Amino acid sequence: ALKLKHDDSSLMFADLTAEEYRQVRDYMWKQPDLQISHDALAKPTDNFIFLIELQLPKKAAVLQFLDESGQKPVRSATVVVFHGSLKEIREYEVGPLPNPKFHTDITKGKYKTALSIQSRTVTIGEYAILFRFLHKEIFEKLSKICNESFGISGTQTLNPFEGMPRGLRSGDRRTWISFFRNMGGMYIHPVGFEVLVNHESLNSSEWKIEKLLYNGQYFNSTKELNAKYSADKAEKIRYKEILNYASLKPKVKPTGLGPQQHYLQGNRFSVKNNQVLYFDWSFAFGLSALTGMRVFDIRFKGERIVYELSVQEAMSVYGSKTPGMILTKFLDSSIGIGRFAHELARGVDCPYSAEYVDTYRYIDTNKPMRFRNSICIFEHDTGRPLRRHFSDFFSNSYGGLANSVLVIRSITAIGNYDYIWDFIFYHSGSVEAKVHATGYISSSFKIPGSMKYGHQVAENTIGNIHTHFINFKVDMDVLGVKNVFQTKDMKFEEEELPWLPGQKAFVPHLVEEQLATEMEAALEYGGKIPRYLHIASNKTNRWGHQRSYRLQVISFTGDHLPESAPEERSMSWARYKVAITKHKDEESQCSSLYSQNNMWTPADLVAWVTTGFLHIPHSEDIPNTVTVGNGGGVILRPHNYFDEDPSVDSPDAVYIHPD
Amino acid sequence: ALKLKHDDSSLMFADLTAEEYRQVRDYMWKQPDLQISHDALAKPTDNFIFLIELQLPKKAAVLQFLDESGQKPVRSATVVVFHGSLKEIREYEVGPLPNPKFHTDITKGKYKTALSIQSRTVTIGEYAILFRFLHKEIFEKLSKICNESFGISGTQTLNPFEGMPRGLRSGDRRTWISFFRNMGGMYIHPVGFEVLVNHESLNSSEWKIEKLLYNGQYFNSTKELNAKYSADKAEKIRYKEILNYASLKPKVKPTGLGPQQHYLQGNRFSVKNNQVLYFDWSFAFGLSALTGMRVFDIRFKGERIVYELSVQEAMSVYGSKTPGMILTKFLDSSIGIGRFAHELARGVDCPYSAEYVDTYRYIDTNKPMRFRNSICIFEHDTGRPLRRHFSDFFSNSYGGLANSVLVIRSITAIGNYDYIWDFIFYHSGSVEAKVHATGYISSSFKIPGSMKYGHQVAENTIGNIHTHFINFKVDMDVLGVKNVFQTKDMKFEEEELPWLPGQKAFVPHLVEEQLATEMEAALEYGGKIPRYLHIASNKTNRWGHQRSYRLQVISFTGDHLPESAPEERSMSWARYKVAITKHKDEESQCSSLYSQNNMWTPADLVAWVTTGFLHIPHSEDIPNTVTVGNGGGVILRPHNYFDEDPSVDSPDAVYIHPD
Ligand SMILES: [Ca+2]
Ligand SMILES: [Ca+2]
Ligand SMILES: [Ca+2]
Ligand SMILES: [Ca+2]
Ligand SMILES: [Cu+2]
Ligand SMILES: [Cu+2]
Repeated sequence: ALKLKHDDSSLMFADLTAEEYRQVRDYMWKQPDLQISHDALAKPTDNFIFLIELQLPKKAAVLQFLDESGQKPVRSATVVVFHGSLKEIREYEVGPLPNPKFHTDITKGKYKTALSIQSRTVTIGEYAILFRFLHKEIFEKLSKICNESFGISGTQTLNPFEGMPRGLRSGDRRTWISFFRNMGGMYIHPVGFEVLVNHESLNSSEWKIEKLLYNGQYFNSTKELNAKYSADKAEKIRYKEILNYASLKPKVKPTGLGPQQHYLQGNRFSVKNNQVLYFDWSFAFGLSALTGMRVFDIRFKGERIVYELSVQEAMSVYGSKTPGMILTKFLDSSIGIGRFAHELARGVDCPYSAEYVDTYRYIDTNKPMRFRNSICIFEHDTGRPLRRHFSDFFSNSYGGLANSVLVIRSITAIGNYDYIWDFIFYHSGSVEAKVHATGYISSSFKIPGSMKYGHQVAENTIGNIHTHFINFKVDMDVLGVKNVFQTKDMKFEEEELPWLPGQKAFVPHLVEEQLATEMEAALEYGGKIPRYLHIASNKTNRWGHQRSYRLQVISFTGDHLPESAPEERSMSWARYKVAITKHKDEESQCSSLYSQNNMWTPADLVAWVTTGFLHIPHSEDIPNTVTVGNGGGVILRPHNYFDEDPSVDSPDAVYIHPD
Repeated sequence: ALKLKHDDSSLMFADLTAEEYRQVRDYMWKQPDLQISHDALAKPTDNFIFLIELQLPKKAAVLQFLDESGQKPVRSATVVVFHGSLKEIREYEVGPLPNPKFHTDITKGKYKTALSIQSRTVTIGEYAILFRFLHKEIFEKLSKICNESFGISGTQTLNPFEGMPRGLRSGDRRTWISFFRNMGGMYIHPVGFEVLVNHESLNSSEWKIEKLLYNGQYFNSTKELNAKYSADKAEKIRYKEILNYASLKPKVKPTGLGPQQHYLQGNRFSVKNNQVLYFDWSFAFGLSALTGMRVFDIRFKGERIVYELSVQEAMSVYGSKTPGMILTKFLDSSIGIGRFAHELARGVDCPYSAEYVDTYRYIDTNKPMRFRNSICIFEHDTGRPLRRHFSDFFSNSYGGLANSVLVIRSITAIGNYDYIWDFIFYHSGSVEAKVHATGYISSSFKIPGSMKYGHQVAENTIGNIHTHFINFKVDMDVLGVKNVFQTKDMKFEEEELPWLPGQKAFVPHLVEEQLATEMEAALEYGGKIPRYLHIASNKTNRWGHQRSYRLQVISFTGDHLPESAPEERSMSWARYKVAITKHKDEESQCSSLYSQNNMWTPADLVAWVTTGFLHIPHSEDIPNTVTVGNGGGVILRPHNYFDEDPSVDSPDAVYIHPD
């Protein structure tokens, strides 16, 4: 059934192989001046390779190679080193691959400044120290309370969950840690105890407990808490055993089996390396440990439509009475989204007979890691026609086409939450990026005043109100890189009726605009946004209209943080439903965008699309949030791009007529 | 697999059977004072039974019967008679069924006024006369032009397509008819010729052609057109044969077969009469010839959640340069939506192995009509988990559940457009009403100035800009009929950080409101609408929160007609994303709603939900609009209704853990 042939063009976008990771690591380990620790649990004072990842080749070089038989771009890696010894984070380009021979410090070129070691994410090595610290400073010192209030003794512990950011100023590393019962689905078992840990120093012997919250009351030290507790001057929590309402284990043996997809013609798509072919579609795929799943060089009938379509960020802003989540804004890509793409469960996460692909990553480790079956690719019957028409007026006939689509999916379980990431390919020439949220909500212990921040969802447990903002990078190239940004909308205008002079009526008009600067094309939520947004070529279709693709955003979260909030600057992308910028290789992520006001017309445009939803947790979020209604995405739809719907040529078409 | 048992409670909502239609018709035919024609093609001057349909029993009586072992409500029919002889439309209740013995004129009680015969829809009988009229007054009188410009001769004709409404004032019956080539998919083959027919008189010999538009030029009579055409004073259209780009016939023999749903456990739902059982769900269904598909008495675990969920209206407002669509606002229910629910194509319209149900209708006919396989019911794998969580922090486990749903569907092909209507039932206690549009766009002939109203999509053909407004009636009864309307939203408030006196941050707060009048609860598009809308009971769940269902509207069209437009009053529901009213048996449809400002709190509330989208046609709408991105709907989601997600008990649940 396959019309297309595989080639090697996708390999430029392929994630590094296990062997490549190893070569880069070994090359870096060998550099005498870098003195990098080989320990997976390296200490904060050590030099540690946090991340090795594909360095995306520059777009101009890629296009030269793909479209103009230019030279193949050099393959290289980005390597992030936490230089504990220098108190800096440095980013290197290491190449060529295979067999690296150079490493270049690209930090200042990329970030315009040196990066303080304080802004690093917490590594497994630091967590190991932190857990020992908590054991010694909390569980041992508060053993009586831990026993009476939380039911733990001896080597038993509570599970920590961190708030973020780690302070009000950048460089702060003072983290509120909330404690949860050590059981499956801990995230909805808060015990009513939170501590503020100052772990700014690379030397963990200088770490301090700065504040404690026990049952809604603040204390300055474990000593103060112990004293007041013993003197009955603290409102006490009495430990009570409870059934684990967070358990996903069915109470009765499951006996059901829902409908399964059945492929009578076998797989109608093909995967080779990181290239997928499906009817008229071809594309390359990869998975960044930081930002997540991405596809490149999406072509329909051989013509590139999208250069890059990728997950950029998943942000959640929480409301809370207790300090563990008062400030909390999870910016998942700062921890890493793609790194949590684990094995997919056949028959639930993806259809049983989907094609499953392994991924390899090198993040917070000392060796490449294999993640078996962490991407799935399958054809799916959406259960609804792509198009159909039945006619019994004047002529009798029926024509239709089932809506079968190709889906490529990964699921990232980032702590409590699981995001399902889909890219979907339609026979009508549309591509969709879609996300759904599931997994556990974040929760906090119920204390006076906490109902202003959410609903109670379980014993003593508040499900905290929060937003889900998801950002996709959409680098469409509509018939080449020179594109314009267009909007279309409808407006009622009062008109005289030509056959009834003097009589007027309101008639819808088509209103088209072309926006010329990044400032104009940053479409803020709350403003009146035209209903149709287009990336258009200046080339025209058969009827003289600019060939374009429309961006249809599916769900939007609503209000972002007020712009007066100091932390808003670093996440200003969330203000915009869609923002358009000129492509820059160095502007590869959404976080650092809106500093300039470039002119274009035409230019290589990139759309940054924000989708998501407001989540007010409720009892039905226990044990897990369901995906129904909890998603968002963007559909890229041809609009005067083809001369007619390309699905007319689908081999799946059905036509019935009486003669 | 079925846990529930069928009963006869759904029969109260069942459409009339063929035998019942016949009994009602025969009873009416027998009334000597009514003098009803038996002719299917009755003339406008005749008395004609236009419609026989189930008269929905009064809600109070139904609830008495279902919940308090009251008497079974009398079953009766609504009969709409076009009394040509009296120049009135009258509506009768005829009952009891079976074996009717009474007929009561309910017109004035229902409409507060007599109904003029002028407001009747055009019957097949009138169309037959109209076609003869057009033949005689147009095709014969303009035979030269018809031949040279449109390529027809002899008995050949063009196909008419009517604009609506039929004038500016109610009672007007002056219809612009546009002509299209007589070929499959005529709707996108406008020939450039439109005529204004005055057919106000019941006596067709008084009908007149009042205006003609030929190639963008207006003429007062066929005589004037003929004269100017012959004198070369009219810009001429030259007929050209073209390939039928509207054809749905594949150019090459289709050989593809997409994925099919496969039911390893057989059907996991059961249909008996008009009752469906699926896991914890039960409901009754029916199909009104006027408004379309509807479900009643939706229960989950035996508890009624929805009394009625039904399609109410599909409206499209068009922009155009040519008069045939300048005024056009299709209000589909005025013609009848459900009457066009035809046979569904297995494997395209619904899965091959769906359960198919026949429907029977009596509309614009003289005998009951059977529509084979016009409703389908099937279980569908959405291809995405309903919920899942993978954990490798602290404890290792995986729990998840495939998202299998039950779908009940009909598809109505109302002239050019096909709407796909779904009601969907989820294991998590949600119900969704969903609509997708497909089929042919409406088009007009390209003349100077027409590009302000759409894009050119084919030879000489403009796809006219238009809106799709769809209205659903959602009569939820959350733990009985006494409900309140609640909104929830998030608001940032600046707060002092309890552990950092003097330092402030913006923190999301939960904001809840209860709206007390219909005026307040008519949520206009454009206004700031709270993100969560709830129908709530005053009863609380285990954690003290009001048990509620949330209405999540999926897509909204945008601007409605300005309120200053005189015709806006009759379609004012389209202003509102959601409007809440007190249930009234006589307020069964959305069209006549917003006259009062009733107080409630608590009361039996009904939500009128408007969804849809703006459609700017483009070349890919040729030959048919695809469903991708062209839909809308509303999800009814439990929110603090259950104490936990009811899908935890699903027999399909999957759980994996290492020990
Ligand atoms: Ca910029
Ligand atoms: Ca671009
Ligand atoms: Ca009212
Ligand atoms: Ca109600
Ligand atoms: Cu959430
Ligand atoms: Cu449309």
